[in-house]
Amino acid sequence: MKILVVNCGSSSLKYQLFDMNGEQVLAKGIVERIGIDGVLVHQKGEGDKVKLPNDIPNHKVAIELVINTLTDKELGVLQDITEIEAVGHRVVHGGEAFSQSVLIDDSVMDTLNKCIELAPLHNPPNIMGIEACAQVLPGVKQVAVFDTAFHQTMPKKSFIYSLPYEAYEKYSIRRYGFHGTSHKYVAQQAAKLLGKDLKDLKLITCHLGNGASVTAIDGGKSVDTSMGFTPLEGLTMGTRCGDIDPAIVIYLMKKMNLDFDGMNDYLNKKSGVLGISGVSSDFRDIEIAAAEGNERAQLALDVFVHKVKKYIGAYTAVLGGVDAIVFTAGLGENSPETREAVLKGFEYLGLEIDTEKNKVRGKAVNFSKEGSKVQALVIPTNEELMIARDTQAIVKK
Amino acid sequence: MKILVVNCGSSSLKYQLFDMNGEQVLAKGIVERIGIDGVLVHQKGEGDKVKLPNDIPNHKVAIELVINTLTDKELGVLQDITEIEAVGHRVVHGGEAFSQSVLIDDSVMDTLNKCIELAPLHNPPNIMGIEACAQVLPGVKQVAVFDTAFHQTMPKKSFIYSLPYEAYEKYSIRRYGFHGTSHKYVAQQAAKLLGKDLKDLKLITCHLGNGASVTAIDGGKSVDTSMGFTPLEGLTMGTRCGDIDPAIVIYLMKKMNLDFDGMNDYLNKKSGVLGISGVSSDFRDIEIAAAEGNERAQLALDVFVHKVKKYIGAYTAVLGGVDAIVFTAGLGENSPETREAVLKGFEYLGLEIDTEKNKVRGKAVNFSKEGSKVQALVIPTNEELMIARDTQAIVKK
Repeated sequence: MKILVVNCGSSSLKYQLFDMNGEQVLAKGIVERIGIDGVLVHQKGEGDKVKLPNDIPNHKVAIELVINTLTDKELGVLQDITEIEAVGHRVVHGGEAFSQSVLIDDSVMDTLNKCIELAPLHNPPNIMGIEACAQVLPGVKQVAVFDTAFHQTMPKKSFIYSLPYEAYEKYSIRRYGFHGTSHKYVAQQAAKLLGKDLKDLKLITCHLGNGASVTAIDGGKSVDTSMGFTPLEGLTMGTRCGDIDPAIVIYLMKKMNLDFDGMNDYLNKKSGVLGISGVSSDFRDIEIAAAEGNERAQLALDVFVHKVKKYIGAYTAVLGGVDAIVFTAGLGENSPETREAVLKGFEYLGLEIDTEKNKVRGKAVNFSKEGSKVQALVIPTNEELMIARDTQAIVKK
Repeated sequence: MKILVVNCGSSSLKYQLFDMNGEQVLAKGIVERIGIDGVLVHQKGEGDKVKLPNDIPNHKVAIELVINTLTDKELGVLQDITEIEAVGHRVVHGGEAFSQSVLIDDSVMDTLNKCIELAPLHNPPNIMGIEACAQVLPGVKQVAVFDTAFHQTMPKKSFIYSLPYEAYEKYSIRRYGFHGTSHKYVAQQAAKLLGKDLKDLKLITCHLGNGASVTAIDGGKSVDTSMGFTPLEGLTMGTRCGDIDPAIVIYLMKKMNLDFDGMNDYLNKKSGVLGISGVSSDFRDIEIAAAEGNERAQLALDVFVHKVKKYIGAYTAVLGGVDAIVFTAGLGENSPETREAVLKGFEYLGLEIDTEKNKVRGKAVNFSKEGSKVQALVIPTNEELMIARDTQAIVKK
């Protein structure tokens, strides 16, 4: 079965075409600058990336271009468009309506439209992508895979904020959590690597990238996660502030004379390690600056590590102990320094890491010492594969 | 040495007169409804409370009334006003200027006035109290004891928020922490109860009252605490929301059309266990309602306990292990049920509690089982005594 996985942003569209027989990526790419000018960067198998500038006014044209490229004699990997049996879409916000991936029909589309209010920046392009595929690939089954779905198993004590209850009932304000597809995927892979049943494991998964979140997973189910009503809460991120005293929001709006959009921008785009360091939102730049003696760059790293530590500690308490701590995403997979800094001081849990085994980038490894009571793992995430698997499972039903 | 301890609110003034010889409370009381009508409730030693309604337009008149009562032939405990050798004041916010208690002089008053912006509700009545005492007790030395001072030892990684650095440099936005006098006092008492030197202990102190905070104390020094820029951050409290996604503040202001004061009220006065339960801000009322089957009351308790657990876990990570977890303040001292619920599931730390020993209210006790690796303590707080001790130490210099 061949499945196209699509992830639409407001001006971009990422795609991967899977042959589920062997879970092989046949081709992948990204369409950027949709509505501005447009460019498609396409890669066939492990081949070279090909850059195709093009006039791309909207997501429908983007999808047409992707399909044409996938069926192109030279660049393509398909004889015919009909080989695509299903499309899986990443959808950011499923609200409380979706606790798992779902076959898209009219009623699902209605509900997705209702979730726009909860994710005004993310859901509209996701919906555009679905509508574009429906037009370009008529009759092909489409599946929505939600960033929020995996966290719908959280108990109420984890997802209810300490606000007047009407905030939940009337305004749907609760912890939703994000990165669910990634947390779910690495939890499954962690169980395989450990040779254990996921049902028997207490895991803490740390998705550390430009966006970052930590999840407590008990027996395969998310029981708490650091992102909340929006992806702003929790860890220090590239440009997002994570946890702060909520009174600061009001204080700064007053002091700086910011309106709602200005404050949203300040917290989402100017904060995080960029805000502290003043250097960059990219952890690699900050690590270099810190190594060169930039104190605020070092502070940004220290604050980041401190917060990850606190979440690992907090979620160990939530789980009543932990079997393995899993690192994934850009920083989690590729920074041995960050992993070592985060796990320093957890000897009280019986965790001992092997600094030699930890010297790995982008590869799955158990880097705890022989005999360590708690395991420390790197698991490269693969949200696209997870979306393809969910899509296959649902269309096969 | 006789010391008067004063704690001024906007319309109230609490006082205790100590004989430091034996640290005995000679008399105590509270003046309420200052500027409205006025009433003094006075208690001599362990005697009955006497209620004295009076016209009390301001804090100066309140202090005069207190002094008159303390020197009254029948109700009083002093021959003469000159027996009061010093006055110790509770001051909420010392900003970064004060890392310990301080003898009040003109330059201190200047700095206190500068801190008003950081604590607009709390510092002005504290300052009024100091000025009133200076008028009524001319020449008597006065000492300021700050809620924030104990937390000034926090490392930068704990107190810097992940915001643009200008928020700290230009607007003084950082974690300050509160309840410092209480956390410091119970940490000292905990060391005594354990028969250990405070320098050798890793403690987590849980001040659980209508306001609530948790502090990580390493060798007697605060290294992290749950309250932040204001006393709004951290745990679920009686009416305060504690930690929430900062994006919620903006979202709700928009949705509910609230201005800054309206939003501050919503988060500070209508949230917390009151907001979730809809029953009361008093944990005793909520416990009764929960026992009667009120689901939202039970949820409020569950959310509260969940958050305390998370902070204990987080601070164990910050400290790299913990020797003792200390409970204090209204709920912490008087609710065995809460203590048991909070500590359930910490067996992974080697903590075992003795549910029989835990059946205590308002008394110091180590309620961990013989052989427990981590100790669990109840230590009644006594901020007034701590203020009196600091005052004595400073005026003796």
